[in-house]
Amino acid sequence: MTPVISVVGRSNSGKTTLLEKLIRELTARGRRVGTVKHHYHGPVEVDVPGKDSWRHRRAGAVAVALCSREAFFVVRDEPEELHLEAIVHRALAGVELVLTEGFKSGGMPKIEVNRAAQGVPLLCGADDQLVAVVADHALEVPVPRFGLEEVAGLADFIEREFLQTSVPAPVEVLVGGRRLALDADAQEILARVVRSLVGDPTNLRGGPPIEIRVEGRGA
Amino acid sequence: MTPVISVVGRSNSGKTTLLEKLIRELTARGRRVGTVKHHYHGPVEVDVPGKDSWRHRRAGAVAVALCSREAFFVVRDEPEELHLEAIVHRALAGVELVLTEGFKSGGMPKIEVNRAAQGVPLLCGADDQLVAVVADHALEVPVPRFGLEEVAGLADFIEREFLQTSVPAPVEVLVGGRRLALDADAQEILARVVRSLVGDPTNLRGGPPIEIRVEGRGA
Repeated sequence: MTPVISVVGRSNSGKTTLLEKLIRELTARGRRVGTVKHHYHGPVEVDVPGKDSWRHRRAGAVAVALCSREAFFVVRDEPEELHLEAIVHRALAGVELVLTEGFKSGGMPKIEVNRAAQGVPLLCGADDQLVAVVADHALEVPVPRFGLEEVAGLADFIEREFLQTSVPAPVEVLVGGRRLALDADAQEILARVVRSLVGDPTNLRGGPPIEIRVEGRGA
Repeated sequence: MTPVISVVGRSNSGKTTLLEKLIRELTARGRRVGTVKHHYHGPVEVDVPGKDSWRHRRAGAVAVALCSREAFFVVRDEPEELHLEAIVHRALAGVELVLTEGFKSGGMPKIEVNRAAQGVPLLCGADDQLVAVVADHALEVPVPRFGLEEVAGLADFIEREFLQTSVPAPVEVLVGGRRLALDADAQEILARVVRSLVGDPTNLRGGPPIEIRVEGRGA
């Protein structure tokens, strides 16, 4: 499973700036990084000449997609908000690490940015899976602390703690939109069974990627 | 597999207007319709305050996603253009019918719009999977022809030809981003095997949806 780490912090604490530096550093090290940002305020608007997709949507389509060479955009009725794991599975396949901004809830590991000038305590409590703090001042925290410019050190920490297995997971499974934890053996078996079921009895990593969706009740 | 029908025609022939009418008609009949539009000209721009996702992208992220309650938007490096089947699989799950606008290539069935005032022949040739024509004038075509306002008749045709099986396919499989044709028996077997492999030995349609990705070489 692709590791997902969330960068959290108060408004204007410098989350996006830290993310930019971290992406640059990890990309320079040859890592394939993906990001997810949650957009809480108001609809995502797409500036498209003619806005045909909006005409489709207004006419009643439950899901409209707009795609180009390197982008795709989907607006759809969802019974409930998509979990981050579903977004990563469906849209960010093939990356080594996903960094998110602004997902404080959810059980993924978190790096919190904190600045002295803001004079506020950490957002993350004991149960929030805090793994590191980035701050411009001394803070008593039970996790590693990095300065705002210590990006290389933070990247070392991320590589050591989250990217040490150089072999990416061969299989990812979502059940009801949530990741299923599978150990390495279970993944290998599932990969082999799926390849043979779809008529691709090559070795485990030899063939093209395979995506399967089994619909649930009422689908 | 979700049926996909493409509405094609020359510029300004009225494709979007026909699609709107058709979506309204099918939605009024209780059908869940999705659409896909290809955006050929220039990048898709997203109007987001601060444009943090663009900062992530410029910093080197290979894939950036922006999501809200009902929308998600992804920009990513793709080795080649995503096939329509991959877009439908990943983004339009759960719809009964996908209508696309402007995908002339590809083997999906096509409905062509043609208007006398434009004075041009059909775009679709003998090999283009043309299944119906919508026109405001008499045309000699080897497929059913409907007037611009005969939307109910066109919807009847689509329901009869493409939506007659009231039970949706339980399984969809993509290999290398392309749909794998599986007959009903193979789908049932695959669904049962997948459910038991992921520890959900309920009956075929009893559980939540399951999504599996088996990575390919070099993933």
